Amino acid sequence: MSSTIASFSTVSERLFEAKARHGLTFDEIAKAVGRDEVWVAAAFYGQAKPDAEELAKLGDVLGLSSLKEEVSPQWWPMRGGLGSTPPTDPVIYRLYEGVLVYGHAIKAIINEKFGDGIMSMINCKVTVEKKPDPAGDRVLLTFDGKFLPYSKW
Amino acid sequence: MSSTIASFSTVSERLFEAKARHGLTFDEIAKAVGRDEVWVAAAFYGQAKPDAEELAKLGDVLGLSSLKEEVSPQWWPMRGGLGSTPPTDPVIYRLYEGVLVYGHAIKAIINEKFGDGIMSMINCKVTVEKKPDPAGDRVLLTFDGKFLPYSKW
Amino acid sequence: MSSTIASFSTVSERLFEAKARHGLTFDEIAKAVGRDEVWVAAAFYGQAKPDAEELAKLGDVLGLSSLKEEVSPQWWPMRGGLGSTPPTDPVIYRLYEGVLVYGHAIKAIINEKFGDGIMSMINCKVTVEKKPDPAGDRVLLTFDGKFLPYSKW
Amino acid sequence: MSSTIASFSTVSERLFEAKARHGLTFDEIAKAVGRDEVWVAAAFYGQAKPDAEELAKLGDVLGLSSLKEEVSPQWWPMRGGLGSTPPTDPVIYRLYEGVLVYGHAIKAIINEKFGDGIMSMINCKVTVEKKPDPAGDRVLLTFDGKFLPYSKW
Amino acid sequence: MSSTIASFSTVSERLFEAKARHGLTFDEIAKAVGRDEVWVAAAFYGQAKPDAEELAKLGDVLGLSSLKEEVSPQWWPMRGGLGSTPPTDPVIYRLYEGVLVYGHAIKAIINEKFGDGIMSMINCKVTVEKKPDPAGDRVLLTFDGKFLPYSKW
Amino acid sequence: MSSTIASFSTVSERLFEAKARHGLTFDEIAKAVGRDEVWVAAAFYGQAKPDAEELAKLGDVLGLSSLKEEVSPQWWPMRGGLGSTPPTDPVIYRLYEGVLVYGHAIKAIINEKFGDGIMSMINCKVTVEKKPDPAGDRVLLTFDGKFLPYSKW
Amino acid sequence: MSSTIASFSTVSERLFEAKARHGLTFDEIAKAVGRDEVWVAAAFYGQAKPDAEELAKLGDVLGLSSLKEEVSPQWWPMRGGLGSTPPTDPVIYRLYEGVLVYGHAIKAIINEKFGDGIMSMINCKVTVEKKPDPAGDRVLLTFDGKFLPYSKW
Amino acid sequence: MSSTIASFSTVSERLFEAKARHGLTFDEIAKAVGRDEVWVAAAFYGQAKPDAEELAKLGDVLGLSSLKEEVSPQWWPMRGGLGSTPPTDPVIYRLYEGVLVYGHAIKAIINEKFGDGIMSMINCKVTVEKKPDPAGDRVLLTFDGKFLPYSKW
Amino acid sequence: MSSTIASFSTVSERLFEAKARHGLTFDEIAKAVGRDEVWVAAAFYGQAKPDAEELAKLGDVLGLSSLKEEVSPQWWPMRGGLGSTPPTDPVIYRLYEGVLVYGHAIKAIINEKFGDGIMSMINCKVTVEKKPDPAGDRVLLTFDGKFLPYSKW
Amino acid sequence: MSSTIASFSTVSERLFEAKARHGLTFDEIAKAVGRDEVWVAAAFYGQAKPDAEELAKLGDVLGLSSLKEEVSPQWWPMRGGLGSTPPTDPVIYRLYEGVLVYGHAIKAIINEKFGDGIMSMINCKVTVEKKPDPAGDRVLLTFDGKFLPYSKW
Repeated sequence: MSSTIASFSTVSERLFEAKARHGLTFDEIAKAVGRDEVWVAAAFYGQAKPDAEELAKLGDVLGLSSLKEEVSPQWWPMRGGLGSTPPTDPVIYRLYEGVLVYGHAIKAIINEKFGDGIMSMINCKVTVEKKPDPAGDRVLLTFDGKFLPYSKW
Repeated sequence: MSSTIASFSTVSERLFEAKARHGLTFDEIAKAVGRDEVWVAAAFYGQAKPDAEELAKLGDVLGLSSLKEEVSPQWWPMRGGLGSTPPTDPVIYRLYEGVLVYGHAIKAIINEKFGDGIMSMINCKVTVEKKPDPAGDRVLLTFDGKFLPYSKW
Repeated sequence: MSSTIASFSTVSERLFEAKARHGLTFDEIAKAVGRDEVWVAAAFYGQAKPDAEELAKLGDVLGLSSLKEEVSPQWWPMRGGLGSTPPTDPVIYRLYEGVLVYGHAIKAIINEKFGDGIMSMINCKVTVEKKPDPAGDRVLLTFDGKFLPYSKW
Repeated sequence: MSSTIASFSTVSERLFEAKARHGLTFDEIAKAVGRDEVWVAAAFYGQAKPDAEELAKLGDVLGLSSLKEEVSPQWWPMRGGLGSTPPTDPVIYRLYEGVLVYGHAIKAIINEKFGDGIMSMINCKVTVEKKPDPAGDRVLLTFDGKFLPYSKW
Repeated sequence: MSSTIASFSTVSERLFEAKARHGLTFDEIAKAVGRDEVWVAAAFYGQAKPDAEELAKLGDVLGLSSLKEEVSPQWWPMRGGLGSTPPTDPVIYRLYEGVLVYGHAIKAIINEKFGDGIMSMINCKVTVEKKPDPAGDRVLLTFDGKFLPYSKW
Repeated sequence: MSSTIASFSTVSERLFEAKARHGLTFDEIAKAVGRDEVWVAAAFYGQAKPDAEELAKLGDVLGLSSLKEEVSPQWWPMRGGLGSTPPTDPVIYRLYEGVLVYGHAIKAIINEKFGDGIMSMINCKVTVEKKPDPAGDRVLLTFDGKFLPYSKW
Repeated sequence: MSSTIASFSTVSERLFEAKARHGLTFDEIAKAVGRDEVWVAAAFYGQAKPDAEELAKLGDVLGLSSLKEEVSPQWWPMRGGLGSTPPTDPVIYRLYEGVLVYGHAIKAIINEKFGDGIMSMINCKVTVEKKPDPAGDRVLLTFDGKFLPYSKW
Repeated sequence: MSSTIASFSTVSERLFEAKARHGLTFDEIAKAVGRDEVWVAAAFYGQAKPDAEELAKLGDVLGLSSLKEEVSPQWWPMRGGLGSTPPTDPVIYRLYEGVLVYGHAIKAIINEKFGDGIMSMINCKVTVEKKPDPAGDRVLLTFDGKFLPYSKW
Repeated sequence: MSSTIASFSTVSERLFEAKARHGLTFDEIAKAVGRDEVWVAAAFYGQAKPDAEELAKLGDVLGLSSLKEEVSPQWWPMRGGLGSTPPTDPVIYRLYEGVLVYGHAIKAIINEKFGDGIMSMINCKVTVEKKPDPAGDRVLLTFDGKFLPYSKW
Repeated sequence: MSSTIASFSTVSERLFEAKARHGLTFDEIAKAVGRDEVWVAAAFYGQAKPDAEELAKLGDVLGLSSLKEEVSPQWWPMRGGLGSTPPTDPVIYRLYEGVLVYGHAIKAIINEKFGDGIMSMINCKVTVEKKPDPAGDRVLLTFDGKFLPYSKW
């Protein structure tokens, strides 16, 4: 039966299992789908919505031929509900700590550079790059989001 | 009296007032101090620790001559306690939403690319750039943090 | 001294007091400022940012001549932090209950009509109208927000 | 066995699956039932109570002939308990943010226009319309609720 | 200056002090105002809105002649925010425990007797009576609220 | 096996199903048991403890002959743990709102009328009556609880 | 001015200061007042209500002659709101841990020995004794509370 | 398989069922085991650790011959996680209310009588006695815990 | 199927059961694996990531031959989500209390000795030793973590 | 006036200011007092209780001659209430993360090595050492606490 409602978790589990079975990286899957690896990982967790063509490509590379039939076009991601808040996993907590410690500074700079508004997290691209460094490799995490000015009315 | 303990807030208020009175941007102040504007804004909020030389430069550009004497070398930032959690301001909430929605995907990519470990939020540089775009300017927010592998013992 | 930082509350208090002293309604003030009354009330609570011209008009109608000087152009609203969450005031709670009870249905209809995305609360106009009704007058509360589709990358 | 108690979730799941299987929109189902689409979506989530006739029509359009027998007249919605609070899904969060940012302003206008009382969320109609706009289509979300004045005694 | 905004607390304090100074009971004040004692006590806590005539009578009986001028007609109660939640005071906790233990049963009976809807807490009168009993006097707490059926649309 | 421990929920479910199957109201069941309908509804939710005789009568009227054997005399209600806190269902929330808005006033009147002590929620009878009213029927919810003075020692 | 309302804290502070100034123990004060030391300490924290005679004796022993005039007979304790919950002080936390770890066992024994009901915390005497022990002195903390059976109606 | 990890709940269920089947009280079981009834009830809830001999006696009196084999010596109680916090059951809540209302007073007396330290909840014996009283029987709840002075170093 | 995703709990359960069945201590297992016992216990709870060789040794000593195949190299620990927060188990709560009571002092000493930065919990070794003492054995818990200075940029 | 009650914060502030004015480290003060630096820092934050002699020595080294008179022997630390929970400062959060990630493993080892009981945080010494390391200096944080076995009774 097509996964139409909130719980995407059984589809999610099958995606992760197929990925492990084939020994594929997100980057390899992303190249096959024609998307970035962060977006593909988000889709694995049910946090992004692949269209029919993307589902077909995902099914091909993962050997899950019926994927396209299983995920109904009527399925919409229920985003943001994974894990506890505040997060307890140290990797995810560090991102959260970035908001706690630098959030006000980031807001101050955005307001000063762009005026009264926000950086969109909807019209936003998130990437993770490996930056080799002799003192220890670095993670380059980038949010590239559209500035949205506040309406007046 | 030197601000030695937790509450940095009166110093913080005077910094913001001097900045407003002189009509300076964080970028202009940052150039005078020789640091990035996000780091300077973090310092304004008491979330980063300027050394004696940086305090002197801050005092010069803001016309607060006694700043260096006022902030004791024994003062250490009490970080992360500004505002409510989860954040309610829409600018800061969007960053938090980025953690909620994309946190698991970012962790998955970091683990896959680097192994078992985290992106440091201590050895990390945060920048905000304006990226002009005919469809609406974009905010480029970057976290450049060292990868730290988990110890085994 | 110009109100540059987080706390807008003393300005806010003076606005409410001047309004009461002159016996003005938000609608009368809004007409003088050239904005909608909900937006003006939001500005009174420090939840919207008037520009210099709007501050001047506000100062005129409220007899607060120095308002324009008091609110620095460097002041940016710290939005959303008023009152407790969940709200305890019955008027505000009913709005929150609308989210609790109808939130999933509203999301379902938005997704179905527009695709994968959100209704912006930044590019959004909020109005309150009185709709006379013999069975008891009705409140017509409208959110008119831009649809923002999710990026793929 | 008739679903008489709190958990409506298995009926809910079957409704969503039938809707997906028939490729129907809420609007099409709503027309068949003679109700608005938001109300019908709320009923799908167990947040509104269809009567026997409405259950029959729902059963007809969705091909679930026994629906009327399955939902006991003794079943009453347990409303408002879906999802986490504060909401984490970005679509629903934006509605919640509307309460956080504009709640006090809306209350101020309601009180000023109607006196001491509330907008009912019980005697209230909620609609979602698509408003085409060359700068991007807009969502028109409307709450049409009866004003209820506070008793004195 | 007229109390126009959220904080009613200084007015509240003066009311309680005048009541103590005159050694008046809520019942005596209520008779002078022409209202029930629970409503008057609610008004003392800023949880109900007296009109001009009621303020005048309150001022008379409490010897606070300027009360009518001090409370602006533009003041609206910010209700429900007193004390912690869940309540810690044993008197108030017992009421809360009534909701925890008997809330579902009360809902079941309301739904069964009246249909799908609620008991209004806005159009509601609350009274407290002393019922002498040889085994120990009893408190008779009554909520007399209008039933509001759910809209369909 | 007799339900001896915390979870009364399977017994609860069977009671509700039998009630729906026979089309009985709580009032009809209450008359057969010789108790008030609110108390019976509380027992259905596992919030009150029927004795052997009451279980026998319940079993008779609901056609659940083994009920008396199924509920062990060693079973004691685990009260108050149903649903979320604060409650999200609008019917139950209104009761909670009554505590939020009128709790301090009720406490003030109880203290003034009875002295330092509480209204017992243990030695307390809760009833719900329908009060016909041309302007809309009213719910009469009554708590009749013993006053308990505070010990001194 | 008589302390009539919620905040008893300034009276509380003066009591503690006078006690320290005179170098008195709670036991010595309790003997002078004719009450137990735990009850007197509770009164110091505003958690119990002394009558006029007890206030006079307290005033005598502490050299606070106006105490009786300062605490109005209209003052009623607002109990239970001291400190954070869960408690963070280790002494108080251990009591709380007693509830966490042994609460279910205590309830089981009370129910089994007394039937369906509670141990009153209103009609309850709390004492703390020192029990010398060669292996380390012991604290004997006793709650002596009336059993209250649940009403049926 | 031996219950080695966190969840003791299936063993717990079997203990309660056997106790009900044999119609035994905790006191009777406690006498057979040679322990106090509160400790035995705590063990039933997995909040205390019986040794091999105690398990054998428990198995004997309850007719659960394999109990000793089922509970591994490697099993350690995961204490304190039963039920919600703050507790909602009225019996357990009253204990919690004792901490809220009298916690500061108890701490004050302990500190004054013993110095800087705590009453241990580890080296502590908890008993519940029935104290007959013509005005209504009383519960005598006693915590007998070792005083532990704070280290200095 | 290989355990690739979040839930490591079935693997965890099997590890604990095999350990109990063989009557092995963590120390004995740790010696076989070539790691410290705390690290091995952390791995049992899914809080540390063994590599292929360590999995093989674990499988050997525990008689779980397929362990290496069952835990996919694509599995990454989801750390920190065990149990409630704040912790309720007394052993774990004491550690938490150490943070509550001594956290600020520890931070003060770290800052003073090392400058502005943190003690890493990623590059950190945790050990537990038994230190015999005639007055009662002592637990020696050590965190040996790298100091990380804050970046400036 | 002697600081007798909860709030130690003004004394705390004066201690920190005197320390900064004299440019002393905690280690230097600790040597003068004859205690460890972590214990002294804890005392600065009001988390440990110095006796009269220690107060005299503190007063000497800090040039606060009246300290001994200012802190009453009747003052007892109110421990553990500094800062928010979970902690937001990164230094303190890392300690908390140690509890989240390694708490279960530490408990498992303590239980296995010592039996059923806890590591005392009352009879416990906490030290922080600097351990030079060419790959970056390390923090050695040690908790040396007495093991306390659980009572049986």
